[in-house]
Amino acid sequence: MTVLEYGHNMIIVDCGVMFPESDMYGIDLVLPQFDYVVQNQANLRGIVITHGHLDHIGGLPYLLRQVKTTLYGTSLTIGMVKRQLEEAQLLHQAKFQVVQNTDSFQLGPFKINLFPVAHSIPGAVGLVIDTPVGAVVHTGDYKLDETPSGGQTTDLARLQKLTPNGVLALLADSTNADKPGRTPTEQIVSDELDRLFAEAKQGRIIIATFASLLARLQEIITLAKKHGRKVALTGRSLEENVMLARDLGYLKIPDGLLVDINTKVPDKKLLILATGSQGEPRSALNRMAQGEHREIQIKRGDTIIISGGTIPGNEEEVGRMLNKLFVCGANVIYGHLANVHVSGHCSRDEMQVMLQTVKPTYFIPVHGEARHLHLHARMAEQNGVDAKKVFILDNGDVWATDGTKAWLDAPVPAANVMVDGHLVGQVGDLIMQDRQRLSQDGFIVALIRVNANNKLVGEPEIISRGFVPLDGADDLLQSACKEITRYVRLGRGIANENIRDLLQNFFYRATRSSPVVLPSIIKV
Amino acid sequence: MTVLEYGHNMIIVDCGVMFPESDMYGIDLVLPQFDYVVQNQANLRGIVITHGHLDHIGGLPYLLRQVKTTLYGTSLTIGMVKRQLEEAQLLHQAKFQVVQNTDSFQLGPFKINLFPVAHSIPGAVGLVIDTPVGAVVHTGDYKLDETPSGGQTTDLARLQKLTPNGVLALLADSTNADKPGRTPTEQIVSDELDRLFAEAKQGRIIIATFASLLARLQEIITLAKKHGRKVALTGRSLEENVMLARDLGYLKIPDGLLVDINTKVPDKKLLILATGSQGEPRSALNRMAQGEHREIQIKRGDTIIISGGTIPGNEEEVGRMLNKLFVCGANVIYGHLANVHVSGHCSRDEMQVMLQTVKPTYFIPVHGEARHLHLHARMAEQNGVDAKKVFILDNGDVWATDGTKAWLDAPVPAANVMVDGHLVGQVGDLIMQDRQRLSQDGFIVALIRVNANNKLVGEPEIISRGFVPLDGADDLLQSACKEITRYVRLGRGIANENIRDLLQNFFYRATRSSPVVLPSIIKV
Repeated sequence: MTVLEYGHNMIIVDCGVMFPESDMYGIDLVLPQFDYVVQNQANLRGIVITHGHLDHIGGLPYLLRQVKTTLYGTSLTIGMVKRQLEEAQLLHQAKFQVVQNTDSFQLGPFKINLFPVAHSIPGAVGLVIDTPVGAVVHTGDYKLDETPSGGQTTDLARLQKLTPNGVLALLADSTNADKPGRTPTEQIVSDELDRLFAEAKQGRIIIATFASLLARLQEIITLAKKHGRKVALTGRSLEENVMLARDLGYLKIPDGLLVDINTKVPDKKLLILATGSQGEPRSALNRMAQGEHREIQIKRGDTIIISGGTIPGNEEEVGRMLNKLFVCGANVIYGHLANVHVSGHCSRDEMQVMLQTVKPTYFIPVHGEARHLHLHARMAEQNGVDAKKVFILDNGDVWATDGTKAWLDAPVPAANVMVDGHLVGQVGDLIMQDRQRLSQDGFIVALIRVNANNKLVGEPEIISRGFVPLDGADDLLQSACKEITRYVRLGRGIANENIRDLLQNFFYRATRSSPVVLPSIIKV
Repeated sequence: MTVLEYGHNMIIVDCGVMFPESDMYGIDLVLPQFDYVVQNQANLRGIVITHGHLDHIGGLPYLLRQVKTTLYGTSLTIGMVKRQLEEAQLLHQAKFQVVQNTDSFQLGPFKINLFPVAHSIPGAVGLVIDTPVGAVVHTGDYKLDETPSGGQTTDLARLQKLTPNGVLALLADSTNADKPGRTPTEQIVSDELDRLFAEAKQGRIIIATFASLLARLQEIITLAKKHGRKVALTGRSLEENVMLARDLGYLKIPDGLLVDINTKVPDKKLLILATGSQGEPRSALNRMAQGEHREIQIKRGDTIIISGGTIPGNEEEVGRMLNKLFVCGANVIYGHLANVHVSGHCSRDEMQVMLQTVKPTYFIPVHGEARHLHLHARMAEQNGVDAKKVFILDNGDVWATDGTKAWLDAPVPAANVMVDGHLVGQVGDLIMQDRQRLSQDGFIVALIRVNANNKLVGEPEIISRGFVPLDGADDLLQSACKEITRYVRLGRGIANENIRDLLQNFFYRATRSSPVVLPSIIKV
């Protein structure tokens, strides 16, 4: 999410979510903090969305609980946003303005000029934002693919035409700043799939890809037609996206090509498109791998193609799923075995072209983690941007400019807001620490009954999960109870902390593990 | 671990550990199950170790608690095994036989013939095992690097000379069976490091690599000398391995090159070798990234080179560490930014050379996960091995042969044995499920005091961790207590299960989370 302000006018570009890292235990997704926007919503002139991926639109259902505004985007983008807001019953909070990918429109003092970009979803745009102090370019997500699926290339000529007086600041996609060269064209994926389809003569073809990779879906559908195969879909997000993109004219599907997953089609005439390229536990392909898919059992002769990169952090899940698919007898094509996936983001050589095309006075790398921003920043310096005019911003940093100078103003609050079920923002670092420790060693609750004179009543009792197997741990837990009894009888008091320390030391000595220990003194 | 038996004679090849996957909560490492070997130890003629990496020797301290035997390996391998056993105070359990990499020796009816292989650690060997029914080749870990560090190539000529009557069965390294082509030579890493050293003129160079990648360490030491830099070591495993390999003559370190980490050396004259290429929390480089390293603070001008591949599952930790190093101002070279790492394992084209060199009657792919074994198996079939003579074995499977036919006998017990601190094998799936759930949603213990007539005494009390923040959850937890009170007063009984269900439903409705719920009925 990027916020631009001039006087009492504010616009927002994109409003995405991040997916949790593996040390964010139990977290569903991570939002930007909206406080500043909510407090200043009277100034908000609208939200411009560059494209329909969740890391650009997923935060809207949370922001629009608190803010009413107008959303601007191309028809597919707006279609995807509307579906999200509908699910959250928030359609009434927003107005929608569908724009063309070369439109210009005014939001307060900001003139927004769109230019088409090539990305892995149709209808993606970059922005030239004319402000009273100069032009700001926001690339959105892009690559410089000259033969992309669907034919929409990144229109650098239009970008240049839109900036006759130069560019004050460039905000550019840094996702692949550690990838040398150029991102290969989507056309090589299409060629490779064509070859693999030709080889898979007798069996079914099953392709797993991202439901949001609509450009890839178009290629696959076109090739299915060419090779005389019907296409069946499995996985809710995939079915929804295909229907939406078809209805809006972004996906061309020949009549009669799509069939219901239950339709009887000979194996060699069937292609199944499935969710699950990341090995997600409940995705269609993972259910097939586990023999739990209602309609499809994997068998010898099936060709399975994983046509999507593995998002860092998902390697193990994907690996386990692939293992199971091989054990089921399938021929699985993944990773480096064939060119069945390319990134939707530009690599270093393309970033250099963008820098040299835009020649910005100021440069602010966006999209990517700190390492990507730093690498992109260094590249800008090597391409003629004054090192003092390169700004690497943290969430909440406020970059200010009068068109001549630029500086950092006091930052606004912008923590990562963790969403855990219905809990938005309540779950923080302390809970994460507890969950981390529980995940490693489980817990022990020791119930200690005492009378009015602080004398033990009966034996202490221990409740535990996740620490040691309870059916073999009688000795260990009984010894722990005896430790408590001895300690209390020695008259050393029954303070919670003392007994907690006693037990923590006892269990660490016995097992080298450190469960969460919670004594509970019960007066009876 | 591979076990070979003939009559009442048994030998073992390697005895390694696996490192836990991310869903093995709190597990330190994973052992093979030793029951069969322990029960038949009277037959054990010795253990042959191919090389000193932990996935080939790490299980020995656990096996040798229960079994006495003789260990055979090259001097570096035996040196590394001895250090492990010394730490575990188990040196007395084994005899050690240091062998040369072209030696032959007899263990019962098995004649073991070694041949040198190129791998990322010196002293690595493959085995030709002459048995009464034919020759078995076990490659160990290898690649066909013709210009490896240290000069030890894989000696295919010797392998052929050792098998004049053909090979009954080939057991071959499958680790990289999904990597096309050949694994690049170690020489390109050396050339690239040479270039990077020349570029880093003023600042310090800090290189993180695996402590066990001794071949790489030799190159770095040689280049440090060439570029006039002293070498300081940080990280215990690295210091130990370097000293051991130097003492055994496997590492050549020029006099005066090594300096203590506290020695004052000008930045441009210093190279620091550190552990931490996987972003391990307590490793030297990660402590630097977090500003917690006692001797080294990262600063602008430092060049940091990550000269080790990322093991699947570690991507996020590595990424977070890299982010922090960039924020500290360092120039970090990692991943695809330069050719600073190559694998120690062969890729598909090399596997094909091995298959065509050995021309085995039977083929058994080893080392790697199911997907790698299946891909390697298919390659064997494409290279002339009868599909019926390719066996993909699970842990515990018993492949039997009389030299003419081959079949599977009844399997032996061979579960993965999880080690958690002092607990070896006690922690199983149930504990994993509990830890998984605790990691997601924490737990609730509800203390419910009742009198002899099952009437409530006082209010129920709730103990919780990892679920919701306790300082803001008074309402939620009080409401839960009221639910319990209402339920018990309705006379619906106080069975644990009923109250557990009641609370689980209550909390799910309120938060969409499912903490572990444990009611405890306390008679007072």
